[in-house]
Amino acid sequence: MKRTVFFVSDSTGITVETFGHSLLSQFEGVEFTLVRRPFIDSEEEAREVVAQIEAAARAEGARPIVFTTLVAPHLARIVHLANAFIISCFETFLAPLENELGIASNHAIGRTHGSTDSSDYKKRIEAINYTLAHDDGVTDRNLTEADVVLVGVSRCGKTPTSLYLAMQFGLKAANFPLIPEDFERGKLPGCLQGIRHKLFGLTILPERLTQIRAERRPNSRYASLENCRYEVDAAEKMMRREGIQWLDSSRKSIEEIAATVLQALQRASEDNARAS
Amino acid sequence: MKRTVFFVSDSTGITVETFGHSLLSQFEGVEFTLVRRPFIDSEEEAREVVAQIEAAARAEGARPIVFTTLVAPHLARIVHLANAFIISCFETFLAPLENELGIASNHAIGRTHGSTDSSDYKKRIEAINYTLAHDDGVTDRNLTEADVVLVGVSRCGKTPTSLYLAMQFGLKAANFPLIPEDFERGKLPGCLQGIRHKLFGLTILPERLTQIRAERRPNSRYASLENCRYEVDAAEKMMRREGIQWLDSSRKSIEEIAATVLQALQRASEDNARAS
Repeated sequence: MKRTVFFVSDSTGITVETFGHSLLSQFEGVEFTLVRRPFIDSEEEAREVVAQIEAAARAEGARPIVFTTLVAPHLARIVHLANAFIISCFETFLAPLENELGIASNHAIGRTHGSTDSSDYKKRIEAINYTLAHDDGVTDRNLTEADVVLVGVSRCGKTPTSLYLAMQFGLKAANFPLIPEDFERGKLPGCLQGIRHKLFGLTILPERLTQIRAERRPNSRYASLENCRYEVDAAEKMMRREGIQWLDSSRKSIEEIAATVLQALQRASEDNARAS
Repeated sequence: MKRTVFFVSDSTGITVETFGHSLLSQFEGVEFTLVRRPFIDSEEEAREVVAQIEAAARAEGARPIVFTTLVAPHLARIVHLANAFIISCFETFLAPLENELGIASNHAIGRTHGSTDSSDYKKRIEAINYTLAHDDGVTDRNLTEADVVLVGVSRCGKTPTSLYLAMQFGLKAANFPLIPEDFERGKLPGCLQGIRHKLFGLTILPERLTQIRAERRPNSRYASLENCRYEVDAAEKMMRREGIQWLDSSRKSIEEIAATVLQALQRASEDNARAS
């Protein structure tokens, strides 16, 4: 079974596309063809999208599924007349929410990803720059500025998770590798000792780690199952001894790891608030 | 006016939070306190969330707004009984979509960000690694593998945009700076000459660029308005001469730049398809 899916937005369309993926992932056995139509902000473009939707309906013999976020009512009206199954994810909730809050919404286009002057946006950009500058232990300067420092053996998922934490949540997320020298010394790297409360550990199954490392350096000692077993075991012992909270990244997506780290940070700060 | 907002999800909650932000950004003058409750996957946790919602309702004297994505009906049922204004962004569309497609949904928890074995997920991770390895012209090896190569003067937004393209869309997005030596030579860097069709340019207002650069290197020639004017002008001339499509990043968010780049890539590939 095949079906064409449109994401029609007056802005980037990223929110509606993410939302749509999430819904569509609940349906197996359908082959969805995805069409993005961002930045639809004139009647002419809206009518052009309608024509494209109708052409797809004719070609496929089934009406397309159309996810929309069109804040401007006159544009929504045009697109909603298309021969399609329309999911107006945004518009559906706007009126009830206006009612609940007792105020009118802006109907302003491009609010989600448009305000580059907001402090939240600036914080995100700063966080991305900080995270890039503090990837993989590149520098131990300003580590005290970090919101969180991910630790773990090489290639256990620290870098993409740090970037995601910065990009999505605006957190200054440094990461620092635990290496054989640390295990031999039996101590955390010196620069991490004063910031233990900011550390979050990632670990990984040795069998998974050896696969990942072998893609980079096939047939190396570094990638060997024996060495991966040693490093993972030593890192877990160190984290346990130092009281560092950690999770196993082996079967988790970046988003799941990031959301878990964020949850742990929130709990820690709630505990601190209660304790003080 | 104040209002507490909960994001309740059986998975990471990232989709519902992004969606909720998007809706709430339409309402000015309300101070929203945001509470994330990800990974709610048992009845006990669902009841605990309900208690937290009701406590917030009592404390604030107004029922909270609760965005939910709970795929499991028995968990949704519990949370939906809370004294709150519930926006069940996910559940609202599931039944109509089942009806439209004529098949039942999985009601599977954690589908959105859970499948680390999927080829899409692996592609994203590869893209992130590629993008990090090809940031800021670090290497010109394997540039032909890139889906897109962003070019522009130093500090015009290439790095965060590349990372976003990789993270969100799974694109191998390299970036390469245009520097005074290139302008003096009057030629694109050699490694870019064979891949002109993959280039996308970013430019920026000199007044904005001087601000950004001054944060890094105050009082430098590099950051001076005069030099920024020279570089931006020379870069724009070069891009125009080479037929490189570009946009002005000065007032655009990462998401807007990324969505625009993606749209340009799609149009180019549609044009190619039509031409061949």
